[in-house]
Amino acid sequence: MSENQETVAVIAITLPDGTVKSFPSGSTGLDIALSIGRKLAQDALALKVNGIAVDLSKPLTADSEIEILTFDSPLGKDIFWHSSSHIMAQAIEELYPDSKFGAGPSIEQGFYYDVASTYRFREEDLRQIEQKMLEISKRDIQIRREEMSRTAAIDFFKTVRNEPYKVEILEDTLKEVETVSLYHQEGFTDLCIGPHLPSTSKLKAVLLTNISSSYWRGDSERENMQRIYGITFPSEKMLKEHVTLLEEAKRRDHRKLGAELQLFMLSPEVGSGLPIWLPKGAIIRNELESFLKEEQRKRGYLPVYTPHIGNIELYKRSGHYPYYSESQFPPLTYHDENGKQEQYLLKPMNCPHHHLIYSSALRSYRDLPIRLTEFGTVYRHEQSGELNGLVRARGFTQDDSHIYCRPDQLVDEICDAIDLTQFVFATLGFSDVQTRLSMHDPENQAKYGGTPEVWEQAEKDVKEAADRMGIKYFIGIGEASFYGPKIDFIVRDALGRKWQLGTVQVDYVMPERFDLTYIGSDGQKHRPVVIHRAPFGSMERFIGVLIEHTAGNFPLWLAPVQAVVLPIAEDVHDYAKSVHQAMLAAGIRTELDTRSEKIGKKIREAEIGKVPCMIVIGQKEQESSEVSLRRHRIGDEGKFSVAGLIEKLQKEITGRT
Amino acid sequence: MSENQETVAVIAITLPDGTVKSFPSGSTGLDIALSIGRKLAQDALALKVNGIAVDLSKPLTADSEIEILTFDSPLGKDIFWHSSSHIMAQAIEELYPDSKFGAGPSIEQGFYYDVASTYRFREEDLRQIEQKMLEISKRDIQIRREEMSRTAAIDFFKTVRNEPYKVEILEDTLKEVETVSLYHQEGFTDLCIGPHLPSTSKLKAVLLTNISSSYWRGDSERENMQRIYGITFPSEKMLKEHVTLLEEAKRRDHRKLGAELQLFMLSPEVGSGLPIWLPKGAIIRNELESFLKEEQRKRGYLPVYTPHIGNIELYKRSGHYPYYSESQFPPLTYHDENGKQEQYLLKPMNCPHHHLIYSSALRSYRDLPIRLTEFGTVYRHEQSGELNGLVRARGFTQDDSHIYCRPDQLVDEICDAIDLTQFVFATLGFSDVQTRLSMHDPENQAKYGGTPEVWEQAEKDVKEAADRMGIKYFIGIGEASFYGPKIDFIVRDALGRKWQLGTVQVDYVMPERFDLTYIGSDGQKHRPVVIHRAPFGSMERFIGVLIEHTAGNFPLWLAPVQAVVLPIAEDVHDYAKSVHQAMLAAGIRTELDTRSEKIGKKIREAEIGKVPCMIVIGQKEQESSEVSLRRHRIGDEGKFSVAGLIEKLQKEITGRT
Repeated sequence: MSENQETVAVIAITLPDGTVKSFPSGSTGLDIALSIGRKLAQDALALKVNGIAVDLSKPLTADSEIEILTFDSPLGKDIFWHSSSHIMAQAIEELYPDSKFGAGPSIEQGFYYDVASTYRFREEDLRQIEQKMLEISKRDIQIRREEMSRTAAIDFFKTVRNEPYKVEILEDTLKEVETVSLYHQEGFTDLCIGPHLPSTSKLKAVLLTNISSSYWRGDSERENMQRIYGITFPSEKMLKEHVTLLEEAKRRDHRKLGAELQLFMLSPEVGSGLPIWLPKGAIIRNELESFLKEEQRKRGYLPVYTPHIGNIELYKRSGHYPYYSESQFPPLTYHDENGKQEQYLLKPMNCPHHHLIYSSALRSYRDLPIRLTEFGTVYRHEQSGELNGLVRARGFTQDDSHIYCRPDQLVDEICDAIDLTQFVFATLGFSDVQTRLSMHDPENQAKYGGTPEVWEQAEKDVKEAADRMGIKYFIGIGEASFYGPKIDFIVRDALGRKWQLGTVQVDYVMPERFDLTYIGSDGQKHRPVVIHRAPFGSMERFIGVLIEHTAGNFPLWLAPVQAVVLPIAEDVHDYAKSVHQAMLAAGIRTELDTRSEKIGKKIREAEIGKVPCMIVIGQKEQESSEVSLRRHRIGDEGKFSVAGLIEKLQKEITGRT
Repeated sequence: MSENQETVAVIAITLPDGTVKSFPSGSTGLDIALSIGRKLAQDALALKVNGIAVDLSKPLTADSEIEILTFDSPLGKDIFWHSSSHIMAQAIEELYPDSKFGAGPSIEQGFYYDVASTYRFREEDLRQIEQKMLEISKRDIQIRREEMSRTAAIDFFKTVRNEPYKVEILEDTLKEVETVSLYHQEGFTDLCIGPHLPSTSKLKAVLLTNISSSYWRGDSERENMQRIYGITFPSEKMLKEHVTLLEEAKRRDHRKLGAELQLFMLSPEVGSGLPIWLPKGAIIRNELESFLKEEQRKRGYLPVYTPHIGNIELYKRSGHYPYYSESQFPPLTYHDENGKQEQYLLKPMNCPHHHLIYSSALRSYRDLPIRLTEFGTVYRHEQSGELNGLVRARGFTQDDSHIYCRPDQLVDEICDAIDLTQFVFATLGFSDVQTRLSMHDPENQAKYGGTPEVWEQAEKDVKEAADRMGIKYFIGIGEASFYGPKIDFIVRDALGRKWQLGTVQVDYVMPERFDLTYIGSDGQKHRPVVIHRAPFGSMERFIGVLIEHTAGNFPLWLAPVQAVVLPIAEDVHDYAKSVHQAMLAAGIRTELDTRSEKIGKKIREAEIGKVPCMIVIGQKEQESSEVSLRRHRIGDEGKFSVAGLIEKLQKEITGRT
């Protein structure tokens, strides 16, 4: 039997929700989007086919699993911003025709392009380039892919486009490649692997943010280029929201608030990245530490103190030196009285010290688990460009613990560490927490200590604990530490930004390296497993994030100044003083404002200072032996007796609400 | 008119109590002692004449203030032990005639002599030498001073005595001296400035303690000598007491108890002099820190946290570097990403960091005093031979504060710091505290920062505060720090040994160097004064001393394990467990001993572990829902309900009694 060769071939397209639809072979992503709905076709930016992103115009000729990419997905944004960098280049070329283009990638928030030009771009030029980009958008130019041989492309960028940097890339970086792809939009063409938007018209709003200087290929011997940064959106509204968020983030910047509220300082005289906690910041840190200490005491943790330096041999044994020497301060080297060379390292982590404590005594299976804990200050030499106030510092204090347990206790102990971390986050008002199970990359086994069997067991245990705790998680392959898998907690702050804070890590490797043992019920030596865990992660980083999350409006129990007593006039000063004294005696951090200012001004200043409770006292309050309570950002809460107010506030403070 | 030339001249002798007695010119110290009493004459070792110690046999020919020196005074002991070293040398010479003698001084506890001999002294030889010394004592040899010219002495030690080291001293060290003194006792003669005992018979008891090796004149190029140490007493009874004290000190050695009670450890893998606090020691440290924090909060101190390193420029500014570089770890030196050299110092003190905090804001006269406080761990590179457990370490934590005040507030603030220090010592059971006002040495003004006027004022203020607080003190000239006078607190422990712990220091120098200012009521800039103070001094040293003072029998509030529940038999285990849980829930650090051992053994082991409270539970206790309380080193205290016991113990703990 012969079949009709003219019959149009049909392909099966599987959508993300699992439904399968038939399309004629040669259908494009746009065709599929249109078949689903007009709105989707409008929002569609590109297509993911069997996991690979392609242009929306690419004809499909085989059965495929597909996903239509819009601006909602991280990959959709990435493509949007990548095309935007081409559109910006076209705009620059139209405005400044002698410009030559280097690299123009998308980045986490937007894109940039490195431009070589005799013209020095100024801030105000960016507004003009933005206008030109919107004009190019209005032209609704089709963005067209063309594939050609590398040699043809070299010829094209030499003769048609005169783009020496593109020629260099083709002749050097891509010298092993036969066929390359170009993307055209009117007279502008870029060498690019793609994919790209179907048309320039998708871009509806643009903000060029910054000009900085860079070297071609990052090589200071090569040409100086001007790097222009920007961000774009498929709607004006989204840009407005973005700008609002930026302003809010700037307003909440913990470095700005940290200075305004006198929480911490950084001093070049002490050194970059070495925060100094001022009295008001030290109160917050101390309250958080006390909170965790109390909780840890209940859970059977044993505090220890260890030195901030250690002989370098200790870190050679742990494997941290020299492999992590890039992120460590260099060793402190000297010769002792007998001429012997000694080398100490500022401790980059607390683990080796704790392992020595574990092995300082014979341990029985009955002694385990042993949970050592320390607020241990560690020092790491982050690159100066990466330093960021408290959030990225060179000296920071980990709320570190090492739990030494038997293998049969491991899952229970991981669960307890997860529970403690969740309790900490909930108490601090982080309600949106993502959990990543950070696993090793089996294709890169050499990166890790320990055998594949040990890794299999450890990852199984981590999953079992996460499942038992009923937490939603995602898997991060290759995100494990070198000694074992981790559970990483990523919180979203009030502005939706993600911060990796707490961590729970399983370690089968260090017990080997430090020859840690316990005597089992069989009288034989066994290896314990170690859990490393830190709910806050680092006190500095956590508080930095907390400042931005709360915008400095700390909950009552954390507020450096919890209340301020505000007498309305001088005739109630004595009564106000007695209230102030009573509150201090009750352990409530209270100030007294007896300046001869109007009460309105005193309240305004207390609001600016973000003091949670304003205790207003006038003639009426004095007569009835009461006080009026006004809450920061809320307003009046009525009158209370002094004892009643103290009881109410103490309850809130001890309840950490 | 002619006077009778034969009349015996009379001299007026003033005794320590102020009484003046007449003696014939030419009377000796022994004559004076005999005139006062037989017992005193027997105990007399030497005489102090107008502040200078001389032999008891020296004739006095002018009016003088005198003091008869006995073994009770430090100077009397010093002379006793110096003569003892001569007696030991004589004994060695009689036993080992080829011995040659180097230097033989008294030391803080006894004496030593450096001996050159072809014979290698062994431990057991010391017993024989002791016997010979007692035999020399029995011979009741008069110790006789002779003065002669240096050249005659050289001749004597070359020909009569054949003592090459004495000759070397005469020819080298004493080459500018005309007349020297020799002390004879039978055939043995030593070159010595004296004074000495009148007779060898004063020595009644001897203990030679140790043999070590030394170089002649401490020069490793010169002859090796054998240094023999000993201690002697004027009675057998005193030696016995001394030996008992030595044994007790050994028993209480904080390094021994620290290991036995698992309080701290030292590990060569971390480094010499870097104590690691084990869980039980960390409890003590944490309790002491909490105690002081609470007290400081009441007194208006503001906690801060600062890094453990600082740029070296900071210490150049303070003047600590390079002048104190011998006792510091060397700087950590490296080059940053831009090739710029950076140098950091492990902080040897917290002051510069605190000064930067002070100067981080504009301060008004109304803001002062500002009392910054930190449990700041500092690092100093003590010589390895001087390290001693917790008491002398390379890393230690100061309970440091810096009080910035106006000059008119200084005396009040010193008084408050004295008061706090006294409160701390009293709470910790140190009842015998001496106070030294450590003043500068005006003859050595160059050693100190600041002008003579500033020193005059500072020392006046220190004295005024000490007087106002009504404390007894003594003055230590030349004991001040380079930046100002100090009040040093020296405690005597249970064995009578002295330890310098707390300190209060006045500083007019650092405010200049760090350009610290405040705006006065006149609107002008003024300099604050700084008080440095630390009641504990260092947590490590204080706890080291406390361990030896208490012999590890800590008061209830400090004890790492406060109570242990001891069920007598298995049938009361459930009840014992409920008692254990109730005590834990009440925050009392309690263990439970459910081993199937006899109650006697359990109690014995708890006593050895120095657990303050043993909660004994048997059938009777279970029936009456009570417990029996047994106190460590005291015994039974009767029966209590569980709630009653908890209340009683909590009261003791919070009262820190």
